[in-house]
Order: sequence, then C-alpha cells, then structure tokens
Amino acid sequence: MVQNARLHSLGILVLCVLSVPAMTTAQQPVLNLMPLPANTQSGTGSLAVDSSFSIAFTGYSEPRLERAGERFLKQLAHQTGLLFALKPSKTGKGTLVIQTDHASKEIQEVGEDESYILDVSTASARLRASTPLGTMHGLQTFLQLVDVSANGFAAPVVTIQDQPRFPWRGLMIDSARHFIPLDVIRRNIDGMEAVKMNVFHWHLSENQGFRVESKKYPKLHELGSDALYYTQDEIRDLVAYARDRGIRVVPEFDMPGHSTAWFVGHPELASGKGPYAIERKWGIFDPAMDPTNEKVYKFLDDLIGEMARVFPDHYFHIGGDEVNGKEWDANPKIQAFMKAHGIKNNEALQAYFSGRVQKLVTKHGKTVIGWDEVLVEGVPKDIVIQSWRGQASLAKAAKQGYRGILSNGYYLDLGWSAARHYAVDPMSGDAANLSPQEKQRILGGESCMWAEYVNPENVDSRIWPRNAAIAERFWSPQEVRDPVSIYARLDFVSSRLEWLGLTHRSVSRHMLQRLAGSASPAEFAALRTLADVLEPVKDYTREQTAPAEPTSATPMNRVVDAVPLESDAGRLFGELVDQFVAASSHDSAAEARLRAQLTAWRDNDAMLQPLAQRSFLVQEVAGRSQDLAALGSAGLAALDTIAKGQPAADSWKAQQLASIDAAKKPKAQLLLIPAPAVQKLIEAAAAGGGCGSSKP
Amino acid sequence: MVQNARLHSLGILVLCVLSVPAMTTAQQPVLNLMPLPANTQSGTGSLAVDSSFSIAFTGYSEPRLERAGERFLKQLAHQTGLLFALKPSKTGKGTLVIQTDHASKEIQEVGEDESYILDVSTASARLRASTPLGTMHGLQTFLQLVDVSANGFAAPVVTIQDQPRFPWRGLMIDSARHFIPLDVIRRNIDGMEAVKMNVFHWHLSENQGFRVESKKYPKLHELGSDALYYTQDEIRDLVAYARDRGIRVVPEFDMPGHSTAWFVGHPELASGKGPYAIERKWGIFDPAMDPTNEKVYKFLDDLIGEMARVFPDHYFHIGGDEVNGKEWDANPKIQAFMKAHGIKNNEALQAYFSGRVQKLVTKHGKTVIGWDEVLVEGVPKDIVIQSWRGQASLAKAAKQGYRGILSNGYYLDLGWSAARHYAVDPMSGDAANLSPQEKQRILGGESCMWAEYVNPENVDSRIWPRNAAIAERFWSPQEVRDPVSIYARLDFVSSRLEWLGLTHRSVSRHMLQRLAGSASPAEFAALRTLADVLEPVKDYTREQTAPAEPTSATPMNRVVDAVPLESDAGRLFGELVDQFVAASSHDSAAEARLRAQLTAWRDNDAMLQPLAQRSFLVQEVAGRSQDLAALGSAGLAALDTIAKGQPAADSWKAQQLASIDAAKKPKAQLLLIPAPAVQKLIEAAAAGGGCGSSKP
Repeated sequence: MVQNARLHSLGILVLCVLSVPAMTTAQQPVLNLMPLPANTQSGTGSLAVDSSFSIAFTGYSEPRLERAGERFLKQLAHQTGLLFALKPSKTGKGTLVIQTDHASKEIQEVGEDESYILDVSTASARLRASTPLGTMHGLQTFLQLVDVSANGFAAPVVTIQDQPRFPWRGLMIDSARHFIPLDVIRRNIDGMEAVKMNVFHWHLSENQGFRVESKKYPKLHELGSDALYYTQDEIRDLVAYARDRGIRVVPEFDMPGHSTAWFVGHPELASGKGPYAIERKWGIFDPAMDPTNEKVYKFLDDLIGEMARVFPDHYFHIGGDEVNGKEWDANPKIQAFMKAHGIKNNEALQAYFSGRVQKLVTKHGKTVIGWDEVLVEGVPKDIVIQSWRGQASLAKAAKQGYRGILSNGYYLDLGWSAARHYAVDPMSGDAANLSPQEKQRILGGESCMWAEYVNPENVDSRIWPRNAAIAERFWSPQEVRDPVSIYARLDFVSSRLEWLGLTHRSVSRHMLQRLAGSASPAEFAALRTLADVLEPVKDYTREQTAPAEPTSATPMNRVVDAVPLESDAGRLFGELVDQFVAASSHDSAAEARLRAQLTAWRDNDAMLQPLAQRSFLVQEVAGRSQDLAALGSAGLAALDTIAKGQPAADSWKAQQLASIDAAKKPKAQLLLIPAPAVQKLIEAAAAGGGCGSSKP
Repeated sequence: MVQNARLHSLGILVLCVLSVPAMTTAQQPVLNLMPLPANTQSGTGSLAVDSSFSIAFTGYSEPRLERAGERFLKQLAHQTGLLFALKPSKTGKGTLVIQTDHASKEIQEVGEDESYILDVSTASARLRASTPLGTMHGLQTFLQLVDVSANGFAAPVVTIQDQPRFPWRGLMIDSARHFIPLDVIRRNIDGMEAVKMNVFHWHLSENQGFRVESKKYPKLHELGSDALYYTQDEIRDLVAYARDRGIRVVPEFDMPGHSTAWFVGHPELASGKGPYAIERKWGIFDPAMDPTNEKVYKFLDDLIGEMARVFPDHYFHIGGDEVNGKEWDANPKIQAFMKAHGIKNNEALQAYFSGRVQKLVTKHGKTVIGWDEVLVEGVPKDIVIQSWRGQASLAKAAKQGYRGILSNGYYLDLGWSAARHYAVDPMSGDAANLSPQEKQRILGGESCMWAEYVNPENVDSRIWPRNAAIAERFWSPQEVRDPVSIYARLDFVSSRLEWLGLTHRSVSRHMLQRLAGSASPAEFAALRTLADVLEPVKDYTREQTAPAEPTSATPMNRVVDAVPLESDAGRLFGELVDQFVAASSHDSAAEARLRAQLTAWRDNDAMLQPLAQRSFLVQEVAGRSQDLAALGSAGLAALDTIAKGQPAADSWKAQQLASIDAAKKPKAQLLLIPAPAVQKLIEAAAAGGGCGSSKP
C-alpha cells in the first residue's frame, strides 16, 4: 500500500507495471538478474550501450549519488570494455536519466524506502526512486541487464518495479577467529551491493581475538589481537564505504561468553581466576564475563559508549550465544550472588547480564540485537533476535512481540549448496502460521561466514557465489524459488562478481597451483579434473574428520581449502544422469556425454599419481583420485549393461555398489560428489531396460 | 676477476663452487629457476620449509633490507600457505641466515656488485652478498627454490654462486600512449624483481600524452594528459618502491619528435603553426620541437632541471626517435637558420638539437640515454645508445666508444614467442666480433612494452610471462640458451608471478567472459578451446589488418585483446606432432592424444556457433572456429591415411592443403596456431609410410 502511494506520488501510470511476479508468466523471459525484481514487464528490442552512453542525475542530489554514478560508469566500462565519459553528465540529459526524490536518513534505518522503477526503452532509460537507496539498487539492476548481443552491448527493453521483500538483508563476516583485512571486507561489501544486501554484520570479538582498537581500554586490542585489529579511523572509513553502497554496518561484541581475548588484557572482567591467553583452538570455551561484578558493567558502559560513537548504526549486537556456565559454576562469589538475588540458574544469570547490558546499550542511544539466547523474560520489546536456532525460535519471538532475523539455514561455513540455502525461507515453518502483524516482526535474515576454516585468501570463495542466492531469498518475492533458474543466473552473476575484485573463482586455481608445485600442464589438468568434483565435508564434520586438532595456526593450504564449496561439474553430471535415467527412450547424446566424462575420470588417476608422489598435499587426495577412477569404471560398466537392455546380476550390482560406498565416504575431508549419480546409473542398470536401452 | 676477488674477500672456498654453467653437466638437475644462475652445484636432500622457518640478518643492515626480509617472508608464506613469523629474527639465528657486507650506492649505479652466494644444506641456508642488491637477488632465488615435495615444502640442497651477465637489465613500459595506473606499474616492478631485472624505463611523454606533473610548466600535464598523469609525489613513491627492489627508474621524455602532447599547452615549442591537440591515432606524426628557437632550450633547461630532481637516477632518456622532419621542411625560419649555420639536412639539425639537449642534461648532473638517432658525430662518449635498430647499430656505436643497450628483438608488443625473444642476444651478430673492451660497452638490454594495443587491464598479459625469458637472457651466462628448458620453467615462474598480483593469466578468462556474456558453461568452454589456440597477428600487422583505423578511443574488448600472445596449447600440439612425425616406429599413444585433440577441435564449432549468433564479439571469431574445425577434420584424415601406410593421392593432398592455407590466413587479426602442425601431418600422410604407420 505504501508502495502504491509512492508510485502515485511519482506520477507514474501504475497500470503499466502490473504486478507480474518475475517467474510466473510463461511469456516473460527470465532476465539474468539476481536478485530477481518484484515486478518485471519485458518489452521488445533493446537499448544499445555504446561509447556514447551517458548518465544524468535529476531531482535530489548529494555527493553519495555522484559517487554512485561514477562507480556505476566505471563498472559499466569494465563490464563492456567500452570507453565512455566516466563522469555523470551535467546537462540533465543522458542515455540513462536518474531521478531521486529526496534524501534517505543520515544514519540508514531499518525499513527505509529502497524501491525503484527502471524503464528501459530502445532509445533511453529512466531510473526513478524516492531515495538514494533505491537509486543505487536500480543502478545495480541496470548493470546486470547490460549484456553482449548480436549487435553490440545492450540492455533489454523492460520496465522493472522493484522493492525488497525484507528490510534486513545481511551478511555477517567473522573477522575475529581469522582476521580479515579491510581490502577483503571492502570487496565483499561491493559484492553485497551488487546483490542488494543492506547490512554488513561485523563479528569483531571472540575467544580468538578482539579486533577493534579501543582508546579507552587499549589492552583489549594490544593484548587480545596478535596485532591484527582495525583502527577506529579504518572503521570509520569502512562505515562510510558501506554507507556509500546503501549498507549499514552492525558491530558485534560477543558477551558474556566467546570473550577469552578480552580477558588477556582484562582478566578482572572474567569469572575465572585467569591468567588468560588468546584461544588458539575452535569450539565453545569456559571463560565468561562475571555478571555479578559491578566493575564489568562500568567497563562495558565505557566500551559500549566508545564503540557506539565509532559505529553510527542504530543497532548494536551483543552476541550472547553459547555460554557453557562452567566458570560461573566454579566461582563461589558468583554462586553466592545468585543465591542472594534469587537467581535460580545460569540461564537466569545470563538474563540478568543481558538486561544490564541492554540498558547500557540503550543509554548510549542504540538498540540491542543479539543471538537467540538474549531473548529472556522481561527483555524490552525493541530488541532484535538473530536466530541461529531456526524459524520456530523466530516465530516464538514474533508472537511475544519481538522482531527477529533468521540466520539458521544461512551458515555459509557449513558448505551447503546454493539451492539448499535458497530453499530456506524466513517465513517458512512455524513462521508461516504467524499473523500478518507478527510476520511484520520478521525483518529478514543474514548469511553468516564463521571463520574457523577461512582466511583472507579463500574467504571470498566460501561466501560467493552462494551468498547471491541467499540475497535473492531476502530480496525477491517469496514465490520466486525455482532452484533450476538460480544456477544459470548464479553462473552469470558469479563472473560479474569477480569483475568487482572478488576472487572466489580464481583463488581455487592459485591454491591448487601451490600444492601442485612444478607439475606439468597435464598433471595440473588432472588435479583440476579431480578437484572439480570434490567438496569439503559438510556441516560440523570438518572438525571431526580433521587429521589433527585444528587450531588458528593450522595452514589452510590443502585441497579441502582450495576447492569450492559447491562443485559445478558434480552438479551438472548429476543433472545429466537424471535426464538420462528418466528418459523414456534411449538418449544416445546424453549417453555419449556420460561416457566421455566417465572415461576421463577413469583415466585421470594415472596422470595424477606421479604428481601425488612428489607433493604431500596432492598425496592426500591420491585415494580420492582412485575412488574417482573407480566411479568412472563403475559408471561405464553400468552404461554397458544398460546398452544390453538386460537386468544385471545381483552379484554385479553388489560389487558395483561396494565401490560406490567407498567413494561416498569422506576422505581427506572431501566428498566425491558424483558418487550418488553413478549409483543411480548402477541401479538403473540392475533394474534393466530402464532409461531406454539402446536396443529397441 | 673482480668477482673472484670479492669471493675471496668473503672468505669462501672458491673451489667448492666450481664454475659449472647450470645447463652443461648432465648430472646437474635443472632447477626451476628463472633466470638460471651463473653457477650451480646441486647436492643431495633438501631443507624443510615448515612453520618454524625463520630468517636472520647479520652483517650490514639497513631499513631496505628489513623490508626486503619482510616481503620475502610474506611471499614465502603466500607461496606455501604456511603461517610463520613474518618478521626477521632479532637473535641472529634463523633457518636462512643472510649476511650483507656493506651498503650499495645511495643512488643505484650501473655495474654495482649484484652477486650473491646461496648455500642450502639439509639443516639451514646461508645467503651472502656484498651489497643489498645481491642480497635481494638471492632472496628471490631462494623463493624460487622452495617447492612442494613428498614430505612438505622444501628447498633442494644446492650451492649457487650467481651474478648477472649484464649490468643493465630493463623493462620499458610506455604509459604515454595508454595511461597505466601506478598499481599496475607496481605489480610489474614486483615481477621485475622476481626475475632480477634492475631498470624500469618509464616512457612518459608521447604525441598521445604528457604523463608527469610539472610544477614549472603545469600546462604540460593539465592540457596534455586528459587528466591522466602521475603527480611528483606519486613518482617519488614509485622510485622508492623500485629502489626497495634493487631497480632503477629511468624516465624518458621523448623529443624533439613524439611530442604533440607537449604542444597542446605549449605551441611555442613546436616547429609548426599549431594549434595542437592530443593525438588520438597511432603512428609517426609531423609535430616536432623547433631546434632553432632559443626559447625551446630555456624551456627544456627548466623542465629537465625539474625532472632531474624528481627522478634521482643518473641517466635521463631524451628519446630522439622517428622525427620525420616535415614541420622543419615547412618552416622558413628553420630553413633560414639551417642555411645560416651550415646545417645541411634534418639529420644534422636533429644532431644540433641533441647536442644542445645533451648539454642541458649534463648541466643538471645526468647522463643522456637515447634511441639510436641520438648517436651523431661529435656527441660525447658518455651517452648511452638504446638500439631499436639492432646489434649492428649497437656494435657500430661500441666501436666508436659508445655504450649501448639492445631493445631490437625485445619489443613485447610484436607478439613474438618467448623462444624467439630468448634467442636474441645482445652479443650476437656484429656484436659477436667486437673486442673484449668494445664488448664491455654493451651494457645489456631492455624489453619494451609499447602501448598502442594495451591498457591497464591486459598489459600484464602482454608483458608476462615472456618477459621472464628476456630477463634470463640478460642475467644468465650466454651459453644458457636451451629453448626447451625455458618453457617448463616459464610455466612454473608464470604461476608464481600471478601470486605477486600480476594478472597475466587470469585476465584472459575475465575478458573472454565479457565477450561471452550469458554463455552456458559448455558454450564458454568452446570459446576457451578456440581462444587457447589463437594468437594476435604479429609484428606491425595489427594496424594493417584492423577493421577500422584504431585510435586511443578504440575499445580493447575483442578476442584479439583477450588471448595471450603465445598459445601454450598450440605449442604443445606442435611438439606432439613433431614427436609423432619423427618417431621411427608408430607411436600409438601420441596418435591417440592427437586424435583426441583434433576431434575436440572438429566438434568445437557446433558448440560455439550458437554463442556467436548472440555475441557480436564472438561472431568475429566464428570464421576462426570453422577454420579450427577444418583443421581438426584435415588432421584426422591425415591420421587415417597414415594408419593405412600408403601415400595419399596428390588430389587429396592438394585438397587438404587448401584448408590449411585458409586456416593460415589471419582473420579477425588472429592467427590459428595449430595450422602448420596439421600441415605437417598432411605432408607426412602424403609422403606415406612416414612416422611409422600402424601397420608393420
């Protein structure tokens, strides 16, 4: 409703942008956009983008818009290789005329108008938005529309009326467990802008590091960071950089647990005796702040006050997750306090702590956001819950009147496929049954890049391109959910993201080169063939399957660190097998492609093994290479059997499935992705006559 | 002799590093070093490089060495993925102990001691050098030695005694025709350091741009650069950056020709009437300074004085090439001056100009270097000639007592293969017959990256990896010249160069993605298969074959701009054909590989054509794709014929060779590299029974 009113105020004929959800009308070609817009009306023809291309701003103006315009032009030049003027036109005339109505808030707020309308005709284009936030989103859409065509670079004729489904669309990066330098943060913010995310949640303190300069308590970063921290000036620059891209920066200072690094310089905050050292391992640890110590609140008052000035956002994340309570249990003074104040258990003690901290945050003009655990009885209704537990937890909070965002299902470190993340919806499960008013309390979600197993080198490849699928989940209408469409668009958006400076694709080759050393080109090709169908183990099995207990000093130079979290080659092979097995008549083209792939896998091992003899890092995957060869052989045997059109003997099936079972087991912390697809071929062969034998 | 004295002074037993040229002893494994050292004595075993690795400096110390040590550690960490302390040890103890005797000159001079000795044992390593220059070279050698092994990262046990063959080993980058930003310059300087080049020759002024801020004459850069110039502060930083890597920076201000951009702000310097505009085309143009105008010398006195302070190097390049004399011929005042002063022709007029400018350069404490043309009768003996004309010109100069460096044969923009550049030696041709004293005047050489057809995006790929081969030519002993050895090492060094930030390999995929747009993965693979065997046209044919007259506004987004200048796939195919054709008995493994490759080429076109229909930039190479398919078919037909063991009919041969002739012709400014190799197969087939038919 608000949206329509706004459109009307812009004087636009609303009828011409009929609410056509992007995926529902058969005649509407799916544009290579990610996230897909709310409403798209495709026309005929296209707007040429050549060296005469220009943009002009009309209406409200501010330096941020000028910079956005220059960034847009630079990116468009990069994306086309064309040379055009890299400054917006001053005449009010341009190929793309951009009209912004008025300023957005000085400090970006949750739920500001981010809508825009983009009209592309064969002669020109118009972008209209209420605020610079919408303008910047519209510019990103235009960049995605421009593609090479038979006649040059062009954008298709289209009218897009777009606004986000959720007002809170975030990416969290943990730069505490492994420090992530600012240039890496910046290029990820560029990536967020490209896919219309609007919250950068910065996880800044952990057992393993306190990453922000404190002038008030310098021992925090001096003793708690191994000299790897951000200065306040750097943070201010980063906040400005994000604001320039319509992105809020929400800092997280995790407390009362996850805080060992604080205690290295300030053991007096802790519940245990200390001394404390920066934690080098991963997991949940005992150290926690002492909720019964008034000095802790004085300290936090100072620190939150200081950080509230460094981070202008209205929200302040206090963490609050995973306190195991052991230090509390072991401290007689804390036990005495609990008894004296009628605090029955550790959960109640944490609630007491959260309540005190929440008041401090409020005192400094901010609203608390925290993980599920901060939601305890009596906490004021204005706090925001970030749910790592799931939709049920979120729905429960919403029913109680609390706003929340979903992160369960969006943990990028768990190695899920883009499709699996994409299928998770903040409004599904218990949340689907909320009242409209309660649903409004679900503000959106955040993907989370926890950093046990990422470093500055490979973090991009752990975030992208899958994060673009999550961004679409948060932006596009709920009914946009076709996982097939997403992969074609992801492939396209993924290359464009690399043009922004992200390294998620290129880093894999670099890292494989490191472990291949002076491999011959043929050996290196063999390593890539293997690596292309491997994925790291999923969920929390990485730690369980580790050859030695991993720490922050463990090198990340192994194949498991180098391969992408989702194997394109594995997925495409699986799709081909499905198509072949499901075909009603024999698909000889598909069979030929399967044979070629399976033969390549079968023969790859012979090329790889000499390299494995020379490199300990390749040696680690020598077994996976043999498994892949076995998959190749088994798959070819299955195709042979299918070609005969007779069911295979049970003994044959059992023998083949044994090799599949071996291939399915994780080794070197790596999964061999084609194993289930080859199993399907064997089962089809065993069933006989399935998938259209080549004999009539 | 000097070298031996130095070794002696270091107290080293010279006998243990017998002068064993790296390539001559069969027992000596060729190390993956580029450039190859002067003397290498390999031992048994290796030094482990693990997370305990450290370095320590002893002897002379300076901040530059500390920085070099930190850079070395950072690079080694990057190259291994290991986490070790990134600061040199302060204890004097380390895995690698580095001893430097004394400082090098504050302003690096030609012919300073750059030698070093590197001893690697199974327990530790020692690097010894007279000066930081040698130390830095030795660190680069150590970085190249470290490779992955069966037991971890390691450096082989070896003693290397090394010094350069030539004291002047340069790379020239033209950042005047296309502006090259400083980050690109810096990463190329990193690359130079890695391959032990020591002169960055910066071509800074041209008809198309004057790229340096002048405070004295600001109209030079304000009106002559399209706002694309380096400030003096930036230049000072760059000079410091280069000095930190043992690299001199020699600026070139080209005069009296190649100077249109100067005249935009200062038409009074020119011989014509003006007005002048920044030149947008390529070639040799008429504008030239007026050698008869005293104001010109006053101006140059000021400017050279200003620039002499910005660039501390002892040498100052005044260009001097390619003056066509047309403005001089057309100017009555100049003609009158020549008559009055007995100047017989334009060559003599340029000699007069050069002499005057040479005196100004000398006045400001610098020595002149210039292109061949500056060598005219009576020029003082201390100038240095940079020869674009060749060894004969260089030898002639040496005989007259002039020092010189060779650039003929090292023009990177001509698209020669690494092997072809590598075969060019400054001491070959006429230079081979010089006396020892005359030979000493040949200081080395410079590769030249002229910038008509490069921009910041693809310039790395036009310099590297071929420049590493040229660097070896300048550093390693003359007898090191095996072109086979170079390609294996180039492949290795090329990936390492990308770890420094150079983009010569990765950029090709980025650029192909741009022109492929939303291609499917299979279509994109087809484009890469084609691109992998294409090279841009060679020498000066790029301009002649251009579809329209190229200018500085011509986009560089075509396939010709994206593909590397040397096709690895094409070279490897050629080697395989040579091996197959030369074999005395039928090599069925080679035949199978040839068949697989030829089949892939034959079938690639069907996948590419749909993409060509959708992209005008792929459409341009649709014909090349058809030619490649024809090569595939012809090659397969030749293999079939060879398998029969009977000579083919003449008509067959003629028909096949016709398709080769079509493939050999440049199209879309691209050469199809496998064409000559397929021709060899056809000729072998026509000859019959050659290369071992499969029948006995």
